[in-house]
Amino acid sequence: MRAEILAVGTELLMGQIANTNAQYLSQRLAEIGVGVYHHTVVGDNFDRATAALQTAKDRGANVVILTGGLGPTEDDLTREAVASFVGRSLRTSDEIVEYIRSFYTYRGLEMPENNKQQAMVIEGAAVLHNPRGTAPGMYLEHDGLHLFLLPGPPTEMRPMYEEQVQTILKRLQGANEVVFASRFLRLFGIGESAMEERIADIIRTQSNPTVAPYASEGEVKIRLTASAASEQEAQALIVPIEKSIRDRIGPYIYGIDDESLEVKVGQLLRAQGQTLAAAESCTGGLIGKMITDLSGCSDFFYGSLVTYHNSVKRSVLGVEEAVLSAHGAVSAECAVQMADGARQAAGTDWAISVTGIAGPGGGTDEKPVGLVYIAVAGPDGTTVNQHRWKHGDRTQIRLRAAKTALHSLIQRLQNER
Amino acid sequence: MRAEILAVGTELLMGQIANTNAQYLSQRLAEIGVGVYHHTVVGDNFDRATAALQTAKDRGANVVILTGGLGPTEDDLTREAVASFVGRSLRTSDEIVEYIRSFYTYRGLEMPENNKQQAMVIEGAAVLHNPRGTAPGMYLEHDGLHLFLLPGPPTEMRPMYEEQVQTILKRLQGANEVVFASRFLRLFGIGESAMEERIADIIRTQSNPTVAPYASEGEVKIRLTASAASEQEAQALIVPIEKSIRDRIGPYIYGIDDESLEVKVGQLLRAQGQTLAAAESCTGGLIGKMITDLSGCSDFFYGSLVTYHNSVKRSVLGVEEAVLSAHGAVSAECAVQMADGARQAAGTDWAISVTGIAGPGGGTDEKPVGLVYIAVAGPDGTTVNQHRWKHGDRTQIRLRAAKTALHSLIQRLQNER
Repeated sequence: MRAEILAVGTELLMGQIANTNAQYLSQRLAEIGVGVYHHTVVGDNFDRATAALQTAKDRGANVVILTGGLGPTEDDLTREAVASFVGRSLRTSDEIVEYIRSFYTYRGLEMPENNKQQAMVIEGAAVLHNPRGTAPGMYLEHDGLHLFLLPGPPTEMRPMYEEQVQTILKRLQGANEVVFASRFLRLFGIGESAMEERIADIIRTQSNPTVAPYASEGEVKIRLTASAASEQEAQALIVPIEKSIRDRIGPYIYGIDDESLEVKVGQLLRAQGQTLAAAESCTGGLIGKMITDLSGCSDFFYGSLVTYHNSVKRSVLGVEEAVLSAHGAVSAECAVQMADGARQAAGTDWAISVTGIAGPGGGTDEKPVGLVYIAVAGPDGTTVNQHRWKHGDRTQIRLRAAKTALHSLIQRLQNER
Repeated sequence: MRAEILAVGTELLMGQIANTNAQYLSQRLAEIGVGVYHHTVVGDNFDRATAALQTAKDRGANVVILTGGLGPTEDDLTREAVASFVGRSLRTSDEIVEYIRSFYTYRGLEMPENNKQQAMVIEGAAVLHNPRGTAPGMYLEHDGLHLFLLPGPPTEMRPMYEEQVQTILKRLQGANEVVFASRFLRLFGIGESAMEERIADIIRTQSNPTVAPYASEGEVKIRLTASAASEQEAQALIVPIEKSIRDRIGPYIYGIDDESLEVKVGQLLRAQGQTLAAAESCTGGLIGKMITDLSGCSDFFYGSLVTYHNSVKRSVLGVEEAVLSAHGAVSAECAVQMADGARQAAGTDWAISVTGIAGPGGGTDEKPVGLVYIAVAGPDGTTVNQHRWKHGDRTQIRLRAAKTALHSLIQRLQNER
């Protein structure tokens, strides 16, 4: 199959938002072996949207995934553009009107009249349900071209892709009798280029599975994608290459596929029936936020004491005034007392703490931006490490600090086994 | 002028990197009044790159900015594709060979032979110097179409745009120079369609400034963009339309431009010399994370006590066992004790608390997913509100809860003035 991704939205052409949907969909389509040949962005303009569809068809696309332009405002014209392109009419779906109305009624609100526009369905199109918003998606086939209309907000688009679109695409691929299998290896503590250097020959020489590195937010992933006549055969092709990679850089691989650092922490703590708390200063709640992104984390996560101000480090965590005045809040000593204090205050088996200088202000020669202390307190004692990150902005330093804290805990938990 | 941005790189179509260059260039071009009509991404493929140039020309572009494909490897074929498209030859520039050689010599390295490819210049093109890498850019004009070839790495592309390309574009704009000014109005507590209904006539009838609504992550924004001969005139055009909009929906407008909810909270607290803490359950640290995204928030933010487990609500915040057993953790009574407890434990003027059911698990008929209580404790007492969000996943409910808590605080702080 030959796919294009067509985003509709003037805000993209004005640079107000980035086209993250195109990247997301490209990754997903690569995983199931659908080739993406073009990304296109057009504004909220009927003529340019229909022309872009014609261009895609003319250059041989048989799948076009459209994102955006399904809202209730007059700007939102993806429905109309696609209907016009395929020469079909739009009709109001009473069922969808009722669904949208219920969306408002539940909140004690009247449905604005213009929301009915979102209940317009192209004749013959299958409706893709949108449990996370009011704009339903659509799927239709026209003259050999498969068109998917997805909402623009990633929080609505991504689950719609995962829960509905991918199934349809896999069915369309069916005729080819080729099945794709993908596996992600997740690494921490090694940079993308250092990793690539160690496995450059594997990346270069492998064609089935293909080996592709991804770097994102302080982590590195390696995607292995194999194609074969069956899922089992495709999986089997991955095994020896994964082994070769593990032989080279195994110690950096902490998880596979969806096993993020926080998922791995949860797995290890649940397996050991143990509990966790955190004490955060410069990460400001990010560790708590990352862990509680996981539904059901209450099994093992008791809370995070975000003690941004020194007075709260003292009152809530019991950090000693003497430690703060002798070593400062950004010190190994303070990190240790924060972790110990959180473990005691929350009554957990484990606690992790982070204190550092995320910048851009607040750095000194002695304690520059990027200096971070991370402590792990557990049943067998408390360990602490100093990190010095010379590069990166506030967001990057905070994320790196939070991830390093989780990784430090994983290492301690794995040694406990 | 009518511009397109054409990125060349298979890594973009694989989703390995995001096309941040397109967003960056779009923002910059909007600032100088160059209209961007399309973004396109093609892979490292000669035929598709030349076809994309033809498509751009056919649909009326007179400026195409290409990014990527200027590297030293065989994959890098932007130079060749453009040369072929304009029907000109490539020649090696000895001057550029020497520059690239000096780039390597400075690092004590030999120049790899394939780097000479980067010294190939299209006949008649102006060379854009690249002090941050080995690939020079190019600018040429062909049959009324202005083509810019820029390197893919943002660290090389951005300064090349700022230092060289923008000057050329401004010169091309010549006499009919138009300056654009934009203002965002930020709203909370009203949906996109309800908002649009109230100002539909303004959106429809306005052409300068244009009025465009944006919805993102539980917030709504309105962008006003005016064009005029000077920045001052453009700003002046915005004033009366902003006033008309404020007359209709003023109470929902909490800030402008970059004044997010957390920025606004900071402004109000600093102005009053007051301090804030939070107590979070279902948001799990998100409120703390959002506030501490702001550098310098230690002026007013003391911390957030993320009490996910009931035992920590008791031990750290002093929530009474009687409240938990009579009303449960997700109750107005618990939210009030959490806010009061955080205010006391952190010793701040204000505290906000959130307790609710973010799902997908944990809901009951009586207390469904999406039920959230938010309390604000301040010098003049504690208020609490119940919210019921039927739609949205865990991430959306948590974000909405965090933003609503900040907005509730803003309302209280504004009443204090």
